[in-house]
Amino acid sequence: MALPAPLRGVVPPVCTPLDPHGEVDTASLTRLVTHLLDGGVHGLFALGSTGEVAYLTDDRRATALETVVKAADGRVPVLAGVIDTTTPRVLDHARAAAALGADALVATAPFYTRTHPREIAAHFRRLRAETGLPVVAYDIPVAVHHKLPLPVVQELAEDGTLAALKDSSGDDGALRRVLVALGGRTARPGGPAPGFAVLTGSELTVDAALLAGADGVVPGLGNVDPAGYVRLYEAARAGDWARAAAEQDRLVTLFSMTDIGPEDAMGRSSAALGSFKAALWLLGVIDHGATAFPQIPLSREAVAEVGRRLTAAGLPPVR
Amino acid sequence: MALPAPLRGVVPPVCTPLDPHGEVDTASLTRLVTHLLDGGVHGLFALGSTGEVAYLTDDRRATALETVVKAADGRVPVLAGVIDTTTPRVLDHARAAAALGADALVATAPFYTRTHPREIAAHFRRLRAETGLPVVAYDIPVAVHHKLPLPVVQELAEDGTLAALKDSSGDDGALRRVLVALGGRTARPGGPAPGFAVLTGSELTVDAALLAGADGVVPGLGNVDPAGYVRLYEAARAGDWARAAAEQDRLVTLFSMTDIGPEDAMGRSSAALGSFKAALWLLGVIDHGATAFPQIPLSREAVAEVGRRLTAAGLPPVR
Amino acid sequence: MALPAPLRGVVPPVCTPLDPHGEVDTASLTRLVTHLLDGGVHGLFALGSTGEVAYLTDDRRATALETVVKAADGRVPVLAGVIDTTTPRVLDHARAAAALGADALVATAPFYTRTHPREIAAHFRRLRAETGLPVVAYDIPVAVHHKLPLPVVQELAEDGTLAALKDSSGDDGALRRVLVALGGRTARPGGPAPGFAVLTGSELTVDAALLAGADGVVPGLGNVDPAGYVRLYEAARAGDWARAAAEQDRLVTLFSMTDIGPEDAMGRSSAALGSFKAALWLLGVIDHGATAFPQIPLSREAVAEVGRRLTAAGLPPVR
Amino acid sequence: MALPAPLRGVVPPVCTPLDPHGEVDTASLTRLVTHLLDGGVHGLFALGSTGEVAYLTDDRRATALETVVKAADGRVPVLAGVIDTTTPRVLDHARAAAALGADALVATAPFYTRTHPREIAAHFRRLRAETGLPVVAYDIPVAVHHKLPLPVVQELAEDGTLAALKDSSGDDGALRRVLVALGGRTARPGGPAPGFAVLTGSELTVDAALLAGADGVVPGLGNVDPAGYVRLYEAARAGDWARAAAEQDRLVTLFSMTDIGPEDAMGRSSAALGSFKAALWLLGVIDHGATAFPQIPLSREAVAEVGRRLTAAGLPPVR
Repeated sequence: MALPAPLRGVVPPVCTPLDPHGEVDTASLTRLVTHLLDGGVHGLFALGSTGEVAYLTDDRRATALETVVKAADGRVPVLAGVIDTTTPRVLDHARAAAALGADALVATAPFYTRTHPREIAAHFRRLRAETGLPVVAYDIPVAVHHKLPLPVVQELAEDGTLAALKDSSGDDGALRRVLVALGGRTARPGGPAPGFAVLTGSELTVDAALLAGADGVVPGLGNVDPAGYVRLYEAARAGDWARAAAEQDRLVTLFSMTDIGPEDAMGRSSAALGSFKAALWLLGVIDHGATAFPQIPLSREAVAEVGRRLTAAGLPPVR
Repeated sequence: MALPAPLRGVVPPVCTPLDPHGEVDTASLTRLVTHLLDGGVHGLFALGSTGEVAYLTDDRRATALETVVKAADGRVPVLAGVIDTTTPRVLDHARAAAALGADALVATAPFYTRTHPREIAAHFRRLRAETGLPVVAYDIPVAVHHKLPLPVVQELAEDGTLAALKDSSGDDGALRRVLVALGGRTARPGGPAPGFAVLTGSELTVDAALLAGADGVVPGLGNVDPAGYVRLYEAARAGDWARAAAEQDRLVTLFSMTDIGPEDAMGRSSAALGSFKAALWLLGVIDHGATAFPQIPLSREAVAEVGRRLTAAGLPPVR
Repeated sequence: MALPAPLRGVVPPVCTPLDPHGEVDTASLTRLVTHLLDGGVHGLFALGSTGEVAYLTDDRRATALETVVKAADGRVPVLAGVIDTTTPRVLDHARAAAALGADALVATAPFYTRTHPREIAAHFRRLRAETGLPVVAYDIPVAVHHKLPLPVVQELAEDGTLAALKDSSGDDGALRRVLVALGGRTARPGGPAPGFAVLTGSELTVDAALLAGADGVVPGLGNVDPAGYVRLYEAARAGDWARAAAEQDRLVTLFSMTDIGPEDAMGRSSAALGSFKAALWLLGVIDHGATAFPQIPLSREAVAEVGRRLTAAGLPPVR
Repeated sequence: MALPAPLRGVVPPVCTPLDPHGEVDTASLTRLVTHLLDGGVHGLFALGSTGEVAYLTDDRRATALETVVKAADGRVPVLAGVIDTTTPRVLDHARAAAALGADALVATAPFYTRTHPREIAAHFRRLRAETGLPVVAYDIPVAVHHKLPLPVVQELAEDGTLAALKDSSGDDGALRRVLVALGGRTARPGGPAPGFAVLTGSELTVDAALLAGADGVVPGLGNVDPAGYVRLYEAARAGDWARAAAEQDRLVTLFSMTDIGPEDAMGRSSAALGSFKAALWLLGVIDHGATAFPQIPLSREAVAEVGRRLTAAGLPPVR
């Protein structure tokens, strides 16, 4: 399906449920998509960082994307992460994603190598030119270790290379500068990049991003509570900022589940992904809370604590 | 004067005008304080990063603080930066600031050295115990190269060591977590740290911080347009978030003056501080736009460009 | 062939010559291997960072490795880089490399994700267990953005998981601590990890690393001047440290070719890789100096300057 | 006394013994200087990072420097650290140090602020011009969070601004590039910066630095075992690299005492400084092992472990 221009709303980065052997649990993934669509989300982002894309072999990536596309069944657009070190490898993923029915591609700047802004711009241009699909730039310094420069984003937004920016930089001042530079809230319709969307990946400041003029959000925590993020988005759309902020506060409290698996026992990603999957298991959405190897699993006590946090947030576990 | 509890509103980090010999230009500084008070600010933060505290000798620090205290004349509280590498040196600055009439102290965690969270907590506790003045923790990773850990802030807020947090980390997700952890918007009055204030130092996302429950802002750009930040603050207090966001957008555009002195010609601080001072000179507030040695001054062309940005923001230069 | 234990000597990370379409130029790669063997190298490391592994699709990785294995023809061991974000993806590369005849695998810690030391240890253990091939840990913080912790290296060396460490961290103090911790120069034969090898990837301090007890070097610049690094290694083996240092100094001067493509025009990797390939083209070893997309190529003037540096180092270009 | 040109040999950064009230223990400091001179050191660096300069008030800095100058009594040159955020503050320290009889000044680039290479160059030039004393540039990225750029060092060495570089960057590849760029080992006498000295601050790779052509070393661990570093230096001067390396290995083992105060209990600096001072106390050189506030002290068990490491290194404690 064609991507809305601009892309709007809540577009969760879909977790990838795994079975005990590390294979994609397609039944669980199908249920997760249903859970998200029931929550009212406006799009699905498969194979993102929250989807453990960095841990999935090419075969598992294909299985996961295929499952999401099939489960979405055209009701909302499906964005596919094409995460790899550089353009030639990203293009291979892009071709696979296109063949599997992705509606748009989400790519980071090159990583592992040290890259120049001109090289980054060429990277996104080639991806757009070779695939014809809408391209979303994924700004995630915690993973790629540099921030997309504002002039590059602006240039690629204005010349039509990019359909959207997914800003997971955590730098909301820079995000505001992007929004103002690209036309801002009021000027957007007639602005320099009319169909260009800005989505925040910072699930803790969604009310703020929407107030600043962002078009939507890609919240990892939205796997657990999609309806909460949709309520937040709708409150903001309606101009009810107090309600949006209250919903955001509730979600910030829920997000503290990512601290449970402490940093001295596992990697920070493992703790966050483990808590999301534990929550989905506790809520009866998926059959196993396992994260991909070599991530250390949450302890039984940590899972119990996730359950208590769910209850406190009004999402009582079913097991 | 006693610091309000919690401290609220717009508390600009006051620039320190210098004469061509690098000495504090007290006449200009007095006029700057008047300019800020006329703009409606709720407090003054002398000897902050924007006040070029890192470039001022102890004598110049004393002159600057004395001038601000005298010019403020008890109309608003004066916070004094006591910025130095570790506790013993900070205490020397604190004693000087207390003697000069500061109403509160603003201190970073130790820098230059590598410090443990327990050492950071001891640092703030000693500062509070030895001076008796309210202490504001200044979280500024761009300068001290580590972020204040949330547990340390929370502990020191709850036990009364800290009167406030000035968050210049640019990490608005972490800021939100602090706000929620300390009781949040609605719970604040009866919360665990009732008089504790959270001020954002991120001048580009003030509407967002206030929506999240922050008590105020410490905006470097507030030297140039204090009335703009006060309007933004008042709009937020009144719940008129659309108006707050529009004012913020205007200020974001104005902030782009900090890009004029390009990074390939000078340090990033020099470009920002130089543009603020150039603007104050163009507006007739101060007599010289000079920044402290060894900062490279803005070129004549850059100053002219600052003037154009002022005009575009509705602040026409007078010279 | 079995890897020597410990692995010793000069093991260059083989460049991957490309044709103008970005495909592996197998004829040039075969000539490059001959050039390296003629220079006296003791092993070949295919698909390393210098081999542009991050830019090669899986097909091109296979072509490159197959070509190197065939050209080496059992005369020296061939190590294969299996560079990818996490264990499951690395294992796919490892199986491919084993099938193509690699004698050992070279893997980094996981990247893109944030990983815990215990997760890193599990990563290398799984790789060793599933492949049966000798595993070399590749410590390259500039690419993966964290340093392999000394206790992890020590544990995996002592329990036989790792056959070697390739230290490209640039942190020679930490390298020395590894060497001393693992038994040091004199204790090595009877030390706790008798067959374990430490190779430096810091091509500018090879004399120092050998003096400290390292077993060998993996020099990117060794593509251009393999005989120079072999002379340096042999001088060190003979205890002629003055000669080793003089050879190192000559190579440091030659290394300055990596500065020619200036950082304001391209990425730092592009400048370094571009200069190595330009040199190999000028020396008549390979047919094209092209680097992989999206790297910006060296200008004609830069290539001419590379030629002058070659001449100054006693390696006159043939074109 | 005039600084030798180039400055050569072992120049330890002198620890600053403190009494239980945090005041400089001048009797202990005098004994420490005697201990160092008895060990054969070639100069003394007072008020360096190892001297806890960042923790000393101006008064205590003066007391410490005065004590070292007096105790040295002209037998070796005394270098004084003038460590502060920017030029104007550094100049105040420089004037004080000159008045107290320092033979040379050691200054870092500005910190806390973000500074441009041209600003850094102006900083060192002003320091040299205003004081007339020899200036040593102190490259210590772990403290100031940026590395001195090679072109700046080269320019300031060649124009006579700098008398020496103290390289505590830990980047021995960059150090080698500096050495080669400035004339190298053999060319030094007639090179472009004939009296310029390069001293390494990396106490774990001194043999390597000397092999590369460095003139000397500024070893923190040299407080504990000055004679060991002098033996290492003399072995290197005599071309006996095997002996130099063996001595270095012994010192690397001894250096592991800095790991005893574990990072989860205190800051990394506190652990290192605490272990050096504990060792000096155990050896009977100083009366108290206290480090400056807010550093967490080593536990009694940790001090006992330091004692065991001393014994193992051939330096048995006397208490």
